[in-house]
Amino acid sequence: MNNSDDKLANRNRRSFLTRTLVAGGIAATAPLTSNALARPINSPDTASKAIEPFYGKHQAGIATPIQRNTYFMAFDVITTERAELIALLKAWTDAAAEMTQGPAHMDKNADPEQAPKEMGATLGLPNSRLTITFGFGPTLFEKDGQDRFGLASKRPAALADLPRFNGDQLIPERTGGDISIQACADDAQVVEYALRRMVSLMNGAAQIRWAQTGFTAGYKPNETPRNQMGFKDGTINVPTKDPAAMHQFVWAGNEGPDWMRDGSYMVIRPIRIALEHWDKMKLAFQEQTVGRHKLSGAPLGKHHEFDKLDLEATDKDGNYLIPENSHVRLSAPESNDGAQILRRAFNFDNGVAQIAERWPPWHQSVTFDAGLLFQCYQRDPRTGFTKMFEKMAKFDMLNQFTTHIGSGLFACPPGAQPGEFIGQKLFS
Amino acid sequence: MNNSDDKLANRNRRSFLTRTLVAGGIAATAPLTSNALARPINSPDTASKAIEPFYGKHQAGIATPIQRNTYFMAFDVITTERAELIALLKAWTDAAAEMTQGPAHMDKNADPEQAPKEMGATLGLPNSRLTITFGFGPTLFEKDGQDRFGLASKRPAALADLPRFNGDQLIPERTGGDISIQACADDAQVVEYALRRMVSLMNGAAQIRWAQTGFTAGYKPNETPRNQMGFKDGTINVPTKDPAAMHQFVWAGNEGPDWMRDGSYMVIRPIRIALEHWDKMKLAFQEQTVGRHKLSGAPLGKHHEFDKLDLEATDKDGNYLIPENSHVRLSAPESNDGAQILRRAFNFDNGVAQIAERWPPWHQSVTFDAGLLFQCYQRDPRTGFTKMFEKMAKFDMLNQFTTHIGSGLFACPPGAQPGEFIGQKLFS
Repeated sequence: MNNSDDKLANRNRRSFLTRTLVAGGIAATAPLTSNALARPINSPDTASKAIEPFYGKHQAGIATPIQRNTYFMAFDVITTERAELIALLKAWTDAAAEMTQGPAHMDKNADPEQAPKEMGATLGLPNSRLTITFGFGPTLFEKDGQDRFGLASKRPAALADLPRFNGDQLIPERTGGDISIQACADDAQVVEYALRRMVSLMNGAAQIRWAQTGFTAGYKPNETPRNQMGFKDGTINVPTKDPAAMHQFVWAGNEGPDWMRDGSYMVIRPIRIALEHWDKMKLAFQEQTVGRHKLSGAPLGKHHEFDKLDLEATDKDGNYLIPENSHVRLSAPESNDGAQILRRAFNFDNGVAQIAERWPPWHQSVTFDAGLLFQCYQRDPRTGFTKMFEKMAKFDMLNQFTTHIGSGLFACPPGAQPGEFIGQKLFS
Repeated sequence: MNNSDDKLANRNRRSFLTRTLVAGGIAATAPLTSNALARPINSPDTASKAIEPFYGKHQAGIATPIQRNTYFMAFDVITTERAELIALLKAWTDAAAEMTQGPAHMDKNADPEQAPKEMGATLGLPNSRLTITFGFGPTLFEKDGQDRFGLASKRPAALADLPRFNGDQLIPERTGGDISIQACADDAQVVEYALRRMVSLMNGAAQIRWAQTGFTAGYKPNETPRNQMGFKDGTINVPTKDPAAMHQFVWAGNEGPDWMRDGSYMVIRPIRIALEHWDKMKLAFQEQTVGRHKLSGAPLGKHHEFDKLDLEATDKDGNYLIPENSHVRLSAPESNDGAQILRRAFNFDNGVAQIAERWPPWHQSVTFDAGLLFQCYQRDPRTGFTKMFEKMAKFDMLNQFTTHIGSGLFACPPGAQPGEFIGQKLFS
């Protein structure tokens, strides 16, 4: 058995384990600390040359094992012509198919005298598992009361605007967007290039609204990665290899419009983490906040990462071992009528910035502009992210260290077939 | 011969080739397009577990083959007590030695009940070739006319303030600093963690001034990487494996103060590149601007990357094949009395920002906040970077697309020996 087979076997074992846990009703999905089967496949020796399919039933970049780098961008459509919007989506789809499937991220016929001779920042680089995923925001369907493209009647009920959550500090320049494009790959230059190509194709029909780069750490596929807060992040998540679980929690079905069937709804939120303050907290406080032991990843009171999360366990005085306002309790399916979301989050780090901190006493200073580029997919955000986060936004002890500074909600249509463009059924 | 040996042999062959080119007097060092032997060693399968030495004659992170990720931070010292400054340098040195040499970037005695239990974002990660490099800015020696720490008399002549270059648009929040710390590794989470550890040790003696993260692309060690502008970047550079060249161009010698011998002077400049505009330029214009062919990397008029750069060659009409204001001509040693610098540059990408563009007509818009985190080491910046860049700042055609938005100058002392702290001789 070679190294690659070994990894596959490891993944299969993990998949089985997770399915078993889920079947037993003891899975917990924690928006900030769970990311199981979507964990990084971080061995470029075997993975960097792999090519992720572009055409298919679902868009790539959702169930795809998470890559090392991402570049997320939200666009405003500025043309008022439906035909120009369609032309843009066609151009973007073709470019995405070509870049994700091509060995060199360049136009098929490129030579020294051919396009994209003007770009070429990834010529000769491995494909790096590039995926490009598209989404449509609520404002594409209706904006300021205007049905710009004749799409208002096709807006899915599941694409209801997110409520304003307790503690939201959303910056307009990091929020919203008519269309989202996200590139993920195991190379920062590849994902940057992918978005540059997309920007170069806007042709006056769209403009950039906001963007955020992100990364994951180089843990092995069979390890649960630690996040910036030092806790294992991804012990449990919706198992992407389990079609039943994906059907139940992630892929849109017959309940909504036909054009979204086999698509998924995505919520993305840059969450600034006050890392300087977190780093000063004592271990016991951190563990009470999260509800898990830091080194092992075990639920409080247990010893192993995959030990059962027992929300009823108490100490000799009758206090819950997993505190009432701990992150893992509030995000557990048992606390949310069984709700689960597929987390696919990256870290972000924009260096430092002058930022007002949500920490007493309020003050301005130079602090890390870093944290979690939280991202999740679900069949319906109303019973997924919103269901889980409304309570967490009010009570989660982690909120002392986290501030949601941006937000996006996007309907990611199903995958395109060769000859189609992304979202074609929405326009037919 | 295993894969690792093979790579080493490739590097040795390249080193020989570069030495030969240099000896033949045909080397060219181009600040934006050369980075030969400091090119990325980008195969984590063999490299990520490698440990770069911390203690030694020179600091690591200068001649070290460039890593995939960097986190640069400049600090202002805010204590006025020399003893507190020394204590800070001791704490930072110890942490750097421990993090770069430890297998898990954690305190040696870490266990569930021990420090740095409060952090731990890299527990279990490969060492990832982490290097941490320190530098002292001019303001550490004298600031606003004050000799805060009794160091003014020890300021090296080579640490003369940089002049204001033509076109500089330096943002104060991205410029200067009393002390620089730069972490480089093949993992974005590792370099972020390293700076978080440093920040956690400031203890009121220093504060963050500015920071910038960066990355390189995943080209193989035997390939010249392409930069964001799509050109091969690093065809020729000071050969780090050649002691004579390093002595001549990079390492400080007897000409300056004893405390800097075997150190080097570093210039770092975030250079924003108007990528959207560059991407729209025709290939021929780009190649005239750079002075090289894009696909092959050959000098204009030649066919192979390593063909001789002939600055005298003309076409049938008597025009130079390498245009007078092309980047490669202006940066060539032949155009600068033989000046050479060791480039060790990363790409940066902060997403998008509202930025005033240096492009007619001037306008404000949402544009890429991305470009080159230019960085070079030299024996004396007056005969290195400043010598080369004064002319380039005025005439280089690339300036149409580049804006220097920040600047730092730092004296990077020699490496510490076990038991010493970085820069100890400066204080003795």
